[in-house]
Amino acid sequence: MDDPPEVAAPEVTIVGAGLVGCLLACFLARRGHAVTVYERRPDPREENAGRSRSINLAISERGIDALRRVGLDETVLKAALPMPGRMMHAPDGTLSFQPYSADGRRAINSISRSALNRALLDAVGGFPGVRLRFRHRLTTLDPDTGRMEFDTPGGPVTAVAPVIIGADGAGSAVRARLQHRPGFDLHQEYLDYGYKELSIPARDGDFALDPGALHIWPRGRSMMIALPNPDRSFTCTLFWPERELAELDTPAKVERAFTENYPDARALIPDLAAQYALNPVGHLVTVRCEPWTVLGRAAVVSLIGDAAHAIVPFYGQGANCGFEDCAELDRCLAETGDDYAAALLLYESRRKVNTDTIARLALDNFVEMRDKVASRAFLARKRAEHALERILPGRYVSRYELVSFSTVPYAEVERRVARQRRWTAAAALVVTGVSAWAGVILRNRVRAAVTGPEPGSKPGPAAKSGLAAKWGPGRGRAGTGRRPRAGRW
Amino acid sequence: MDDPPEVAAPEVTIVGAGLVGCLLACFLARRGHAVTVYERRPDPREENAGRSRSINLAISERGIDALRRVGLDETVLKAALPMPGRMMHAPDGTLSFQPYSADGRRAINSISRSALNRALLDAVGGFPGVRLRFRHRLTTLDPDTGRMEFDTPGGPVTAVAPVIIGADGAGSAVRARLQHRPGFDLHQEYLDYGYKELSIPARDGDFALDPGALHIWPRGRSMMIALPNPDRSFTCTLFWPERELAELDTPAKVERAFTENYPDARALIPDLAAQYALNPVGHLVTVRCEPWTVLGRAAVVSLIGDAAHAIVPFYGQGANCGFEDCAELDRCLAETGDDYAAALLLYESRRKVNTDTIARLALDNFVEMRDKVASRAFLARKRAEHALERILPGRYVSRYELVSFSTVPYAEVERRVARQRRWTAAAALVVTGVSAWAGVILRNRVRAAVTGPEPGSKPGPAAKSGLAAKWGPGRGRAGTGRRPRAGRW
Repeated sequence: MDDPPEVAAPEVTIVGAGLVGCLLACFLARRGHAVTVYERRPDPREENAGRSRSINLAISERGIDALRRVGLDETVLKAALPMPGRMMHAPDGTLSFQPYSADGRRAINSISRSALNRALLDAVGGFPGVRLRFRHRLTTLDPDTGRMEFDTPGGPVTAVAPVIIGADGAGSAVRARLQHRPGFDLHQEYLDYGYKELSIPARDGDFALDPGALHIWPRGRSMMIALPNPDRSFTCTLFWPERELAELDTPAKVERAFTENYPDARALIPDLAAQYALNPVGHLVTVRCEPWTVLGRAAVVSLIGDAAHAIVPFYGQGANCGFEDCAELDRCLAETGDDYAAALLLYESRRKVNTDTIARLALDNFVEMRDKVASRAFLARKRAEHALERILPGRYVSRYELVSFSTVPYAEVERRVARQRRWTAAAALVVTGVSAWAGVILRNRVRAAVTGPEPGSKPGPAAKSGLAAKWGPGRGRAGTGRRPRAGRW
Repeated sequence: MDDPPEVAAPEVTIVGAGLVGCLLACFLARRGHAVTVYERRPDPREENAGRSRSINLAISERGIDALRRVGLDETVLKAALPMPGRMMHAPDGTLSFQPYSADGRRAINSISRSALNRALLDAVGGFPGVRLRFRHRLTTLDPDTGRMEFDTPGGPVTAVAPVIIGADGAGSAVRARLQHRPGFDLHQEYLDYGYKELSIPARDGDFALDPGALHIWPRGRSMMIALPNPDRSFTCTLFWPERELAELDTPAKVERAFTENYPDARALIPDLAAQYALNPVGHLVTVRCEPWTVLGRAAVVSLIGDAAHAIVPFYGQGANCGFEDCAELDRCLAETGDDYAAALLLYESRRKVNTDTIARLALDNFVEMRDKVASRAFLARKRAEHALERILPGRYVSRYELVSFSTVPYAEVERRVARQRRWTAAAALVVTGVSAWAGVILRNRVRAAVTGPEPGSKPGPAAKSGLAAKWGPGRGRAGTGRRPRAGRW
């Protein structure tokens, strides 16, 4: 990492010292800006800081690319475990592995949210231009004066800043302050599924399941996943309609539900009922809002990460997408000569369409994960996709790979996938046509060999003069002239 | 009005003493319930209470029906001016009147929001079981304890109640407190149009325009409406994209815009530029949320009126719809024996689909008002509709009449309009077919009279044996067997 330059204006306030707030602080500090980060919780690196929420994270290319830009990729990946595929657990205990990429080598990386947050906080602490203020809960914010108020253990604290960025998550206090301004559109929608975290401890000092996979138990109405941890445990997340999660209110009911749906996992969680009773139910919300950036008279206020676009976790993209926001804002600051108002408006205009897209994909992927991954048709399609990827390397790339192993903007991923679908459908038609034609030729050859030539077995002059004149060499060239376009994807 | 019964439990808190909060208080007080109403503003009946927001209201059947149930309809209508139709102002000053109903006699009623609010506050004051608390701004609310905190001029005040109903409008503080609970879905969407109120004063002691109409200046991109007041002035509301409203930032620009778009109205507003500069820009928001009713451990909290479903004003249904909420909740209380939790859940289940419907209709009607009312096709359709209504009284009723002059639930209005459309399309086909057939018969008769019969001028045996066998008397009866269904609408 380069030495940070001397601290100078502009002054930036970030609300939220979670994953995105910390990474953003690093990006801005590297640009030489003075940054203050306010966080309502205590420093998670303190003892007894309390357990933070989880869902283990899967860091993939977008997140790694952003971390790389501030020199943090290696540090973070050292604490992560690569998962090159899914391990599907059938109800009868049968396991099947589905690689995420065509070559089977690309992996998403399991890391605990809290470990990642601590690593990022340590990195932030390395920049002298960044001040961290914990136990500061934002209560008021006025873009027209730049004034903020925080509740702290020592009483209310006031601060003023010309640039305020809310990186304070799905329940953002900054967004709540912007929400009451005329013209602020907000859509907040909960899934009727809740989640419950459970832990599979290490067995005889080793992983109880293959650590080189994201484990999935797809059961249609419910679903469980498990991600490996460096201490050889697995963190499981069970997704179930909230009402049904709540109905498992006795140890016997929990036992029965697991024995029915997750017998192999049940055997690996000795204190299942106790864990189930202790751990809270988590909720899954999608938030879209607009604008992210509000130009007040005295301050520009903007949103980033989950505060701007909370998504459900089923594509493993929440943190990756938030990290990508930071990298994009950094680019926009470079392009605008560190004019925050212009940069934040530009960043919003570029990111919004992409975050809307991944929000939709994440919801769609829930259906895929809890249901389709167990179907033969789905597995056949995945195998066909991977075969196409191997035949046409870099030309045909599956949506999953484009989302997880590239930094192609999400909206462009969707356009590219649509183009690929059209192209493969056309190719399938051509292959079918050619096969049928070859079949006819072959049949006629065989018949001819046996009985002599049939009338009409080769094109007559009428057909030639008609069709060939219309679709002959001239048109043929026009047709082949289209080929280079295929190279675009 | 009956004497109110002696005050007894249950204790209900209403937040908001606007139109819906006051009417609800009347309904509940009539049921013998103790009601406390908290309002953040001062009592509007005090002097210097400040000007409240407007958009003049058009009270129609739904609102009147609810007022009638608490004996307030006559008092309110006395202060209102009936508007039996629209007066369309063309750019060249040409006026054309479009009655709202087929018989031209049904009217919506112009009343000022503040006059109506004062009348309702006076009515509330007539119930000894109701306490009104002004200058109380809700700051916290916890359904699990029933505890509320209010900011007041004398410092913070705490209250506890088992039933809390938010009637505090589109920017509801009660809804804001519920919004952060998991599972609370919220959609808040602003129109990019703002509005500006202007006043046309009386001229020579009389109305400057016909007081028996809602005046509309439809201009496609912008629109103005004017509603009469008992003091012989008109309240105008100008709708324009916000950016363009803001661009009229000098008297000269205001003058030019009005001279171009609203020349006849311009002549009636002597101090136009001053009014334009003084009056603030209003905003137009649609809010949908779910659930309206939250069952906490110690209190049931629910939403009513704009707090539950703010809509844009273009169908004149905002207040009417909120009043209908009150009447429905009153019915649900009667049906559940005053069990508030059950009644509020029932009320929500019945109203939500209807308020979603009117929210959509109100948005659609904006396009109709600012654009289509000026088109010939629209006027022709309106005339055809009114003709159908006269030919088939009670069987064919236009959407506008069902919304404004009936209490048919909004969602049922939409189903009925869809049925009417299918039926009239079918009827049009039959009429066309019969006319064509009659034309052919007539032509053949004429020809026959001149030249003698033509071959094929009546169906041959083949046609009869083929078609008649398939679609003959048996099928015919099945067909006519459907007729009585038409009577349902």
